[in-house]
Amino acid sequence: MKGGPVYIYGKHAVAEAVEYAPHIVKKVFIAPNFDDEKLRARVTKRNISISALKGTDLVGENAVHQGIVASVEVDRLLLTLEDFLESLDLSKKPALALLGEVQDPHNVGAIIRSAAAMGLSGVLLPKDRTAPVTGAVVKTSAGMAFRIPLVSVGNVNQTLRILKDKGFWIYGLAGEGATSLPEEKFTEPSVFVVGNEGHGIREKTEDLCDILLKIPMHPRTESLNAAASAGIVFYKWSEQHPEALSA
Amino acid sequence: MKGGPVYIYGKHAVAEAVEYAPHIVKKVFIAPNFDDEKLRARVTKRNISISALKGTDLVGENAVHQGIVASVEVDRLLLTLEDFLESLDLSKKPALALLGEVQDPHNVGAIIRSAAAMGLSGVLLPKDRTAPVTGAVVKTSAGMAFRIPLVSVGNVNQTLRILKDKGFWIYGLAGEGATSLPEEKFTEPSVFVVGNEGHGIREKTEDLCDILLKIPMHPRTESLNAAASAGIVFYKWSEQHPEALSA
Repeated sequence: MKGGPVYIYGKHAVAEAVEYAPHIVKKVFIAPNFDDEKLRARVTKRNISISALKGTDLVGENAVHQGIVASVEVDRLLLTLEDFLESLDLSKKPALALLGEVQDPHNVGAIIRSAAAMGLSGVLLPKDRTAPVTGAVVKTSAGMAFRIPLVSVGNVNQTLRILKDKGFWIYGLAGEGATSLPEEKFTEPSVFVVGNEGHGIREKTEDLCDILLKIPMHPRTESLNAAASAGIVFYKWSEQHPEALSA
Repeated sequence: MKGGPVYIYGKHAVAEAVEYAPHIVKKVFIAPNFDDEKLRARVTKRNISISALKGTDLVGENAVHQGIVASVEVDRLLLTLEDFLESLDLSKKPALALLGEVQDPHNVGAIIRSAAAMGLSGVLLPKDRTAPVTGAVVKTSAGMAFRIPLVSVGNVNQTLRILKDKGFWIYGLAGEGATSLPEEKFTEPSVFVVGNEGHGIREKTEDLCDILLKIPMHPRTESLNAAASAGIVFYKWSEQHPEALSA
């Protein structure tokens, strides 16, 4: 999450960055055979410098870059918790996601995408032990990483204490939770803590949760994927907060 | 989907196969430094032959195989539509998933996992233009590929006509659908058609759908990930069918 440029790739991801976060785009690399002249024009219009893309050095062999790569300063995309909280209107009972040690970049990206779709107000990313915002995260988020506020936070438990003081209700997503999702009414500002793919939410973090939410499941299944659980919980929240789905 | 063995890898996936589908496991390859003696004993107990795992030839460099790989005959896992339908009790109003041209193995695996968790009765996989059941699919399904019936079907539209004749209600998952998910009551046997990641459900398939279901979204978002949408819709169905979550 700190230092160095991050390379994002593919037409959609680069177009989203150029459109919604041009201030973080340092340079765009374009392959000789790139044929999307509209996107090239949008890059030029923003006065972003263009270089020739050679080979797959920047993003690795497996990245489907479609002939376009951008180096972006992700640090400049991330808000501080203080600034973010100042911008929030708590009377609207907003919801946030906090990723506690989610390790798979595809899960991080998918959770950002679902949070944006379901009208959450921001995604909190701890500096340690959570996958940093990389090209793969941006790609899996379908560019939503540029459209929903991403907030860099320090210690998870300390962050939850600050949010509690502000009046947030802390929900932990946990297979063994005591409260069944269909029964919950989300009446207060809410934070949804998504835990690690393997060991879930840490014990001390669970202790800070007001409610541990369980998604009822068939007994043949041990658990749901972290991103799938998050998507379902965010959906259920949005069902009760249709006003959050307005622009 | 046809011919040749498929290699599945990792302790969890192999353990699930050995436990729930031993008849399809041809051979298990174990690395010299493999230390899970319990799993090794379970393989031996089933009289499955064991070979030494050398290098990463079988599964490629990027696969996290944890020292154990199994060759499985996926074809023998897949049911025919006829056999599957005979085993179904339609009076229980079951739900099925049908994957129409879902291309990403991770999405296929994630959809199988969510379908199993939410109490669906089976996942229908067209032979053409849908990602086949590979090691990556099994891995992403967290072994659920061995616990929920997987059904190999031919032409998507023909399959939907057969299901319609049986009394199934056909739901297409479509961003531009006319029916909003929170409003739908799932009172009949249901099939949920999940479309391609890019172009969604084909027009002729949409014409066969009784209802196109839309998940309400924030306008900043163009679409949800196919697996995320499927997870949300399956959840919503299960909320109305808690009896489907019993063993």
